[in-house]
Amino acid sequence: MKATIITIGDEILIGQIVDTNSVSIARKLNNAGITIVEKVSIGDTREEIITTVERAMSRSEVVIITGGLGPTKDDITKHTLASMFNSELCYNETEGEHVRSLLARRGIAFTDLNRGQAMLPKCCTVLHNAHGTAPGMWFDTERGGVVIALPGVPFEMEHLMEDEVVPRLKSRFKLKSIVHLTLITRGIPESILAERIAAWEDALPRYMHLAYLPAPNVVRLRLSAYDVDEEVARAEMSAEFERLHAIIGDNIVGMEGATLEERVHEMLVARGLKLAVAESCTGGVIASKFTAIPGASAYFMAGIVAYSNEAKHDILGVSNESLARYGAVSEQVAMEMAEGARRTTGADYAIATTGIAGPTGGSAEKPVGTVWMAVATPTKIFAIMRNSGTDRGQITSRASAYAIELLYNELKTTEL
Amino acid sequence: MKATIITIGDEILIGQIVDTNSVSIARKLNNAGITIVEKVSIGDTREEIITTVERAMSRSEVVIITGGLGPTKDDITKHTLASMFNSELCYNETEGEHVRSLLARRGIAFTDLNRGQAMLPKCCTVLHNAHGTAPGMWFDTERGGVVIALPGVPFEMEHLMEDEVVPRLKSRFKLKSIVHLTLITRGIPESILAERIAAWEDALPRYMHLAYLPAPNVVRLRLSAYDVDEEVARAEMSAEFERLHAIIGDNIVGMEGATLEERVHEMLVARGLKLAVAESCTGGVIASKFTAIPGASAYFMAGIVAYSNEAKHDILGVSNESLARYGAVSEQVAMEMAEGARRTTGADYAIATTGIAGPTGGSAEKPVGTVWMAVATPTKIFAIMRNSGTDRGQITSRASAYAIELLYNELKTTEL
Repeated sequence: MKATIITIGDEILIGQIVDTNSVSIARKLNNAGITIVEKVSIGDTREEIITTVERAMSRSEVVIITGGLGPTKDDITKHTLASMFNSELCYNETEGEHVRSLLARRGIAFTDLNRGQAMLPKCCTVLHNAHGTAPGMWFDTERGGVVIALPGVPFEMEHLMEDEVVPRLKSRFKLKSIVHLTLITRGIPESILAERIAAWEDALPRYMHLAYLPAPNVVRLRLSAYDVDEEVARAEMSAEFERLHAIIGDNIVGMEGATLEERVHEMLVARGLKLAVAESCTGGVIASKFTAIPGASAYFMAGIVAYSNEAKHDILGVSNESLARYGAVSEQVAMEMAEGARRTTGADYAIATTGIAGPTGGSAEKPVGTVWMAVATPTKIFAIMRNSGTDRGQITSRASAYAIELLYNELKTTEL
Repeated sequence: MKATIITIGDEILIGQIVDTNSVSIARKLNNAGITIVEKVSIGDTREEIITTVERAMSRSEVVIITGGLGPTKDDITKHTLASMFNSELCYNETEGEHVRSLLARRGIAFTDLNRGQAMLPKCCTVLHNAHGTAPGMWFDTERGGVVIALPGVPFEMEHLMEDEVVPRLKSRFKLKSIVHLTLITRGIPESILAERIAAWEDALPRYMHLAYLPAPNVVRLRLSAYDVDEEVARAEMSAEFERLHAIIGDNIVGMEGATLEERVHEMLVARGLKLAVAESCTGGVIASKFTAIPGASAYFMAGIVAYSNEAKHDILGVSNESLARYGAVSEQVAMEMAEGARRTTGADYAIATTGIAGPTGGSAEKPVGTVWMAVATPTKIFAIMRNSGTDRGQITSRASAYAIELLYNELKTTEL
């Protein structure tokens, strides 16, 4: 079963927004056993919509469209689909009343524009949008496929996909499973990795497809299989990855989902250890990564974003002498921050970062991108320096990842 | 001048990654005066690549492809393009040596797979990738257009776009400008907004196109103009938006780029005021939003992620009595956290959050999603409670936004 996803909106074409809708739709369709053959983004013009929807219908049984269903003049998806399917727009009493009561609850008047949102093509099945004013639409095509239009507001689209679209697709089509399993490796370059696992790769069952997904210091290996029995494929893929432990065991981080902070989370929980974080240049990013994981409160004592020298001194107890002598961005201060966070909060381990995120504040000796990272453990404190580029966002994101890796390595070493 | 962006990779079609490459490319092309008519994502299959590139060439002068240039078997973009342009692959000495020395610096052996990366189609202009092992390729088409292939690693692609692609496109084609200007409104629903500014919208110069971009509590209004003189268009758009102040002045936040945290940043800098943040459930997200803005060190004293009761008490001075009597998620504790952050750091203003981010920890009285937010100012402390849904990520992101809005409103009120 094949699908095409079409996202409509000039804001996507000009790069004003990142299209996360199609990512979410793709995942949900994949989970339901439907293969996406193409994702297309086009502007809000009638001709583009017609050409693209027709092309999508000719090559896939399922076409999912998002965007362009709002009440304003620039939204033309509904009118265009109505004319494509030779269907007139009629006022839908149920949807109209829903919109009216939704707005009334928020103290907003029901206008002609809102009334227009309940004008729907006669031939479509209306997909009730409990969370917004634009209903979804389900059109059956002459060829036996379906064209589905959903609002572009992510929250509303998500609910419609889960509550309406996926259940209807499952009852309408006979679907088999798609399985993806991804293993994360680190510390081995893609080309070397490919050579080392070449024999393993060649011996994979033919129905499994291997993909390499490289990122700085990390290569993810994904096995995919289409139209299979889910349990069997998942078990066989796990067994294949199991064999990799004998070949590249030291480089395996774990299965996807297991980010380094999640591995640290697991290790801390399993050992009953507590963590604290002291951040300067990373500004709360490390704390937010840990606290984003459900259950972090079991070990996460506190994060201190000690941006000013006063905060470094007053909250973390960094000595004024070190700040004056070595500067805030120094090995000494990073170590005092980590130890101060550990001591202040009663944690077992602490991470600290201090650096120059730019764009200003750099010098010849300490250019923008210089970041000191320290880890304090029950038995020692150590720090390393890394330069993380010149872009403020990149510097904080890389430095956060390095600092977490530093703690991860330390915990792994003391695992025994 | 029209362009199509093609991103290649199964990881995009299955929703494993969010495609930010096409966003970045779209912005850079728009800035150069090139209109994107379509963005397409397809899988790593030869037939799909050929069909899609040919279709793109037939409707746009510029085709930009990313992905599929790696050294491993699943990467087939280069071979496919070479055969489309009837060109054989030859070893490129310069690129080969570049890859060899790049790897040598990182202590990595130069393998046959790396050698393969320097095998390039004879007919293309090689775009030197100073930051990676996969060079870009520039093909001139018979119709007078260009097809450009870039690696999928974002950092490498960005540099190639800036250093090679955009300068070459500018010298190759005669380009006019594209201008987008976006105004942010809040607190007015899209349909009411559209009615209130209908006369203004109808009176816009015909070359300007208006789009509505709704999000929770926010509607962005974007004016776009294509193939224009940049300075003139920008001035005229600014003048149009200026007129909106008389109609919906109270709802205008500012121009895009001006997020609420950026407005707070500006107000604090302008008035020489200091800020501190005390976060429980938002776990560092608020701190990271402020510290992401260049220049935050001028006013951002400290952020304290007081996740445990101990941290709330020891670092922020929240009373154990309040914690026991009202619970950590309460109006009283939120206010004590804000005041404690203000006092501890010597800041003028402080924000605090405390809530239940889930998935566990909720109760009938305080369900998952309950968040208390407090602001402490030089003259008062106040708090409000909001429920922010049931998803952990959504709860922290909404609560962070609400808390910042609370401070923004307070600063705006005291602006006089």
